[in-house]
Amino acid sequence: MSLTASSATIAPDRVTTLVSHLTVPKGFGDATLRNRRPDAIELLGGIPDPSALPTAELIEATRRVLSDPITGTDPLQYSRTAGLDLLRQWIAAREGVPVERILITNGGFHGISLSLQAVVDRGDLVAVDNPIFPLFLRGLELSQGRVLPIAVHNDGLDVEALASELSRGARPVAVYTVPDFHNPSQGTLPTAARIELVRLAEHYGFTVLADNPYRELRFRGEEQSFDVFNQSSHVIHINTFTKTLGPGLRLGWVVVPERLVDPFIKLRSRQDSHSSTFVQSVVGDLLTAQPEFFDDNLATANALYGRRADLLAESLERHAPGAFEISQPEGGFFLWPRIIDDTVDAEQLARDASEEGVEYQRGSFFTSGDGSDADRHLRLAYGNVSDDLLDEAAARLGRALARQRG
Amino acid sequence: MSLTASSATIAPDRVTTLVSHLTVPKGFGDATLRNRRPDAIELLGGIPDPSALPTAELIEATRRVLSDPITGTDPLQYSRTAGLDLLRQWIAAREGVPVERILITNGGFHGISLSLQAVVDRGDLVAVDNPIFPLFLRGLELSQGRVLPIAVHNDGLDVEALASELSRGARPVAVYTVPDFHNPSQGTLPTAARIELVRLAEHYGFTVLADNPYRELRFRGEEQSFDVFNQSSHVIHINTFTKTLGPGLRLGWVVVPERLVDPFIKLRSRQDSHSSTFVQSVVGDLLTAQPEFFDDNLATANALYGRRADLLAESLERHAPGAFEISQPEGGFFLWPRIIDDTVDAEQLARDASEEGVEYQRGSFFTSGDGSDADRHLRLAYGNVSDDLLDEAAARLGRALARQRG
Repeated sequence: MSLTASSATIAPDRVTTLVSHLTVPKGFGDATLRNRRPDAIELLGGIPDPSALPTAELIEATRRVLSDPITGTDPLQYSRTAGLDLLRQWIAAREGVPVERILITNGGFHGISLSLQAVVDRGDLVAVDNPIFPLFLRGLELSQGRVLPIAVHNDGLDVEALASELSRGARPVAVYTVPDFHNPSQGTLPTAARIELVRLAEHYGFTVLADNPYRELRFRGEEQSFDVFNQSSHVIHINTFTKTLGPGLRLGWVVVPERLVDPFIKLRSRQDSHSSTFVQSVVGDLLTAQPEFFDDNLATANALYGRRADLLAESLERHAPGAFEISQPEGGFFLWPRIIDDTVDAEQLARDASEEGVEYQRGSFFTSGDGSDADRHLRLAYGNVSDDLLDEAAARLGRALARQRG
Repeated sequence: MSLTASSATIAPDRVTTLVSHLTVPKGFGDATLRNRRPDAIELLGGIPDPSALPTAELIEATRRVLSDPITGTDPLQYSRTAGLDLLRQWIAAREGVPVERILITNGGFHGISLSLQAVVDRGDLVAVDNPIFPLFLRGLELSQGRVLPIAVHNDGLDVEALASELSRGARPVAVYTVPDFHNPSQGTLPTAARIELVRLAEHYGFTVLADNPYRELRFRGEEQSFDVFNQSSHVIHINTFTKTLGPGLRLGWVVVPERLVDPFIKLRSRQDSHSSTFVQSVVGDLLTAQPEFFDDNLATANALYGRRADLLAESLERHAPGAFEISQPEGGFFLWPRIIDDTVDAEQLARDASEEGVEYQRGSFFTSGDGSDADRHLRLAYGNVSDDLLDEAAARLGRALARQRG
């Protein structure tokens, strides 16, 4: 029979509803990576310092796992969806949970993505940090989730504000927060607030997505409990080796409640089956061949990050005295100074800073709704910027500010 | 205010509609990996031989990329969603397409999964191979897609049967097939049939998912055109380094039409952001530092696979004369013998074979609908089984068959 195009064809640019709802990535992520200016000092990303990344040790671990005459090709073969036992056991011991609850991911954002697909249905309400790690909102488009912004203050998520919303009838299916060294606002949620957050989750039946990539990067102050998260049936605790061993490995994990182990495996087995056996084997060997390696490496890195945080805060005060309110950071990669002078135009400051040769993320980029003063803040990332450049960056920022303050 | 559990809670085991529709993986995949019996000869999976995997070369490539004083930490940092340019360029040159159309994945199944999420909406009709690579059907659960089985014969998909279905009014949004060295049925789709398949796709507006993991494994006969696929706006051409460099790398690619580049990147940037920069860097170096490496390695591997294919076919004929109809394979990892004697119970044969100490996949496992004679076949995978064991496996299979034939 003859075919007539008019009656037969489907629109050739047809894509799924899922994909058609996704926006083009912009702002950070691809654009940041694309437009790096070698002449500017960039305080842009939550990126570990190159000196903290264990290149020599990874070369050795790779040699060890691939040269074993018996098991040397195992890293190049298929493995289980949940992840390699050696690696899961090391993580489980640190998290204080049974190994069955540890699932290996391709990094922290992958953990967020799997969590969203597992617990947030199309159009569901999700309570989130305000200000927020904005890539979470990008991920949430997978579920076309609705957002309920909850204020974040100096000590993390305002759990009382969340409780008020719940008591007024809001029924989120999930609550997203970064509990340690918040991105962007640098604070840490105290143990008491974590306990209350988990109590609310168990009472109202929502799932806490506790996104914790910076947890290991504490350089002062007292650790707040993560066990509160790991012991609840209503928390997915998301972590990664991104900030400690390198983002490029794409290796992380989630601690999931027992009830979510099977759903996660079912979902993951329909994506990429499992994380690279090669990467898992190399990192598993790195972590176990020299048991002290990870903590030693971390101690060195944290000393560096702590020094840089302080140096940047001091330099800002020196080059722009009285201009910023700055909390002393206890860990992580971000300083979140607030512009004290209300007459300063924060957007103009960012443009002027760019002209002076310093790039940072404007606070306004991180809002998830109204009512935040994020637009009066700057997010300054110091992790991968040398001491000298941090001081110079502060000087340039001071000059940018002087353009408005005279 | 006081909280009353009855009115407030959401069911604590709540998961998304997406996840609730996914079945527990079984059969091959996790179960196969879980139950390996050291005393049995396993002809189970499409797995490359350990001797064909470049362990020494990967150690050297890792050393090279991580020890460079300038770029040595780049493999441990974030990179672009589309993939590393070095690797994409190498692939683009082989595929004969602009580099923009190459997107790096975490292996072939990941390519399938992304394709399904990009072009198959919930409940859409998808025409598929019958018999089929069954994990495709597992992936299709992501879209709750409906299946239109199309016969596969000795030379791959029956494109005429597909054309009949289309002319009778079937309107699939996609057609899934393995064009080279079909899994499980070992045949290859001739160029003429590919041209017709692409013509139908462009006419009716569906997308061909050409899943081609075995393409490089040709050990005799003439290559059929893959350019037909790469030059169409209606084909996603899915490939992987799984069968050539090792499944454990989890590294593959898709050649997508221009119109699907952005949808794929938008989707992928909401999953794990990008494939491991580390794995991409190491493999990119491996492929480009010694330009002859990949083809040399492949030639050696294909000589091995060809010899094993022939050896297994000959051994079957020797140990079970006249019992099987066998086509001489031209490539890939599978022999698909048909049991000639209709009185032989194929399921019983598999059980008897297991008792005799040889494991293979029953043909019935691969049907996607009625009308196939797959249940009269055995899928015997010879890629990673030594010559001696292949002969012994055939002897055991002969003994299993003798139990029924006397």
